[in-house]
Amino acid sequence: MPEPYVILGHEPLREFAQRMLEGAGVDAEKASLVARSLVEANLRGVDSHGVQLLNFYIEHMRMDCVDLKAAGHVVSESGASMVYSGDNGIGQVVSDVCCDHAIRLANKHGVSLVTVRESNHFGAAAFWARKIARANLIGIVMCNATPLVPPWQGKEPRFGTNPICMALPGAPERSWLLDMATTTVAMGKIFKAHFSGEPSIPHGWAYDSDGVPTTDTGKAVKGMPMPLGGYKGSGLAFMIEILVAVLSGGAMSTQIGGIRIRTQPMRCGQAFLGIEVARYTPVEEFNQRMEWLVSQVKTTPPAPGYDEVLVAGEPEWRHAEYRGRHGIPLSQGVWQELVKTAATVGVAPPPAA
Amino acid sequence: MPEPYVILGHEPLREFAQRMLEGAGVDAEKASLVARSLVEANLRGVDSHGVQLLNFYIEHMRMDCVDLKAAGHVVSESGASMVYSGDNGIGQVVSDVCCDHAIRLANKHGVSLVTVRESNHFGAAAFWARKIARANLIGIVMCNATPLVPPWQGKEPRFGTNPICMALPGAPERSWLLDMATTTVAMGKIFKAHFSGEPSIPHGWAYDSDGVPTTDTGKAVKGMPMPLGGYKGSGLAFMIEILVAVLSGGAMSTQIGGIRIRTQPMRCGQAFLGIEVARYTPVEEFNQRMEWLVSQVKTTPPAPGYDEVLVAGEPEWRHAEYRGRHGIPLSQGVWQELVKTAATVGVAPPPAA
Repeated sequence: MPEPYVILGHEPLREFAQRMLEGAGVDAEKASLVARSLVEANLRGVDSHGVQLLNFYIEHMRMDCVDLKAAGHVVSESGASMVYSGDNGIGQVVSDVCCDHAIRLANKHGVSLVTVRESNHFGAAAFWARKIARANLIGIVMCNATPLVPPWQGKEPRFGTNPICMALPGAPERSWLLDMATTTVAMGKIFKAHFSGEPSIPHGWAYDSDGVPTTDTGKAVKGMPMPLGGYKGSGLAFMIEILVAVLSGGAMSTQIGGIRIRTQPMRCGQAFLGIEVARYTPVEEFNQRMEWLVSQVKTTPPAPGYDEVLVAGEPEWRHAEYRGRHGIPLSQGVWQELVKTAATVGVAPPPAA
Repeated sequence: MPEPYVILGHEPLREFAQRMLEGAGVDAEKASLVARSLVEANLRGVDSHGVQLLNFYIEHMRMDCVDLKAAGHVVSESGASMVYSGDNGIGQVVSDVCCDHAIRLANKHGVSLVTVRESNHFGAAAFWARKIARANLIGIVMCNATPLVPPWQGKEPRFGTNPICMALPGAPERSWLLDMATTTVAMGKIFKAHFSGEPSIPHGWAYDSDGVPTTDTGKAVKGMPMPLGGYKGSGLAFMIEILVAVLSGGAMSTQIGGIRIRTQPMRCGQAFLGIEVARYTPVEEFNQRMEWLVSQVKTTPPAPGYDEVLVAGEPEWRHAEYRGRHGIPLSQGVWQELVKTAATVGVAPPPAA
């Protein structure tokens, strides 16, 4: 029986990802950026946004649904406001440019909002919010996505998992980082319960295919993820759709393609908000105040059944520390898919640990 | 047996609220602003943020915990960024000035963020987001509040219900308006189940006093409200605390007083974000796109058990239409409390319908 996991160091995994992308026709610099964004997600334990996306990315590229050369263009810039068109370029390439614009405009004005249309999947939002944060800004990043989630009280998908992410400057980045979909859990968590043979999932995770809330894992995998906490999750997803797509003039709701609709360009949108902390308070003071607030939360007596209180980003930081030392475990299923995809672009996998 | 509700037109109710505030020593203009903010919440069906707050407001004022004359001052202004101190003035008075600053700075730069410390309860966030929206901006408003909510996995309160609100310009305001606490439900909804004799509440609403999730209404009323959807609600509350309080240098977490801690100034904070839509897209186009998106959502086939799909703000708009015509129903309990509070400041109630 094979080991359940294949373990690779993050460096060999990044190189493999880069070679696969280059094999698909992506130039070296762009391939390096995409590979780094994916492997960082794996390092942080966010495997849903790690190298397994390459199977989708490369299939999508091979179907000519992504313009491998495009980096997008500025549609309009006015004060701290920008509309950018990704021109169907690679999502990470477009986002990298847009983060730079958000940083430049926030440095000039204190606050900035860049909204982006006609883009593609950009990996995990945290990669971009952290980039903005490294420029001593608060970075807030949002995107819309493939419609998978019904609005509250509806039974057909209208929104993506529309995540929101916020990263902070200066402080050791482990102090706090929020990156959350506006569904109760990602569809991946429901699939994981299914593949692990768990017969039931908690209340509030999913609908069956008729839009009825269910705790039956079998029904949930054929169903849809539930908006976070009900109508509020729907409201947040809608809020993000407005900032990303209504404002940018991009594709909205059912106009978005994506991971489960592979025969057309994705056309998703993103928004990058920058806030220059030093305009409000010195970054060192900001960090001291954050440290106090984090410790207020972490010293809360744990509720029954828990050993400690965690803050947003802490589980991912622990993963990064562990996986940075011990390597990144990929399930056999994900690994075999990757090797298969690599073969389609003439790339051999590295030896796994 | 008395009627369960006292019904007043919104105009007489507003006048009554204003007279009560003037009786407590608030000058006419400020009293008018506070009264309008509270009665607008009642009109929209958000009774938790309506005139019943006068019982707390006036007790707090009579204990000298609020500076009735203060309107706050600008601590710093730099580009589109402002830190404002409310100087312990009335929350609505402070917020009114801060909305004007947010509008002015967004008009100048396209985007603006005003963060406020040493303020007081400002009523419903929607009143302020709508004010910003009437200036053709997207208005996003947040605040921190009395610590009532434990962080995820903790069993003692560290955050308030920390709401986020977003209102849109131009469009008929009924099209979409989000105003949500970052708990699954407000504590008031748990009390309502209790007073209505309902033995159980849904999963995910509340903890008992030991921090164990409960569906027992009796245990929940002695317990704490649960963060929206678990750790994500805690993450959102933390995000808001950062933008409102870490950034402004104001009171954070357990430093906040408030409705349940009446012997000290509240010291809460607020944040007002403005986005000038016309910098991105003409307002008419924005409205057309919103109309399409709202109709996409509203034409989703309803899930079993529902007749229609609603968007954020729609229930409140329907309340406003109905209550504008038929008057505002106040429960006997709320009405008697109000009459008692009015007597302490020498004000007689209007005749109820």
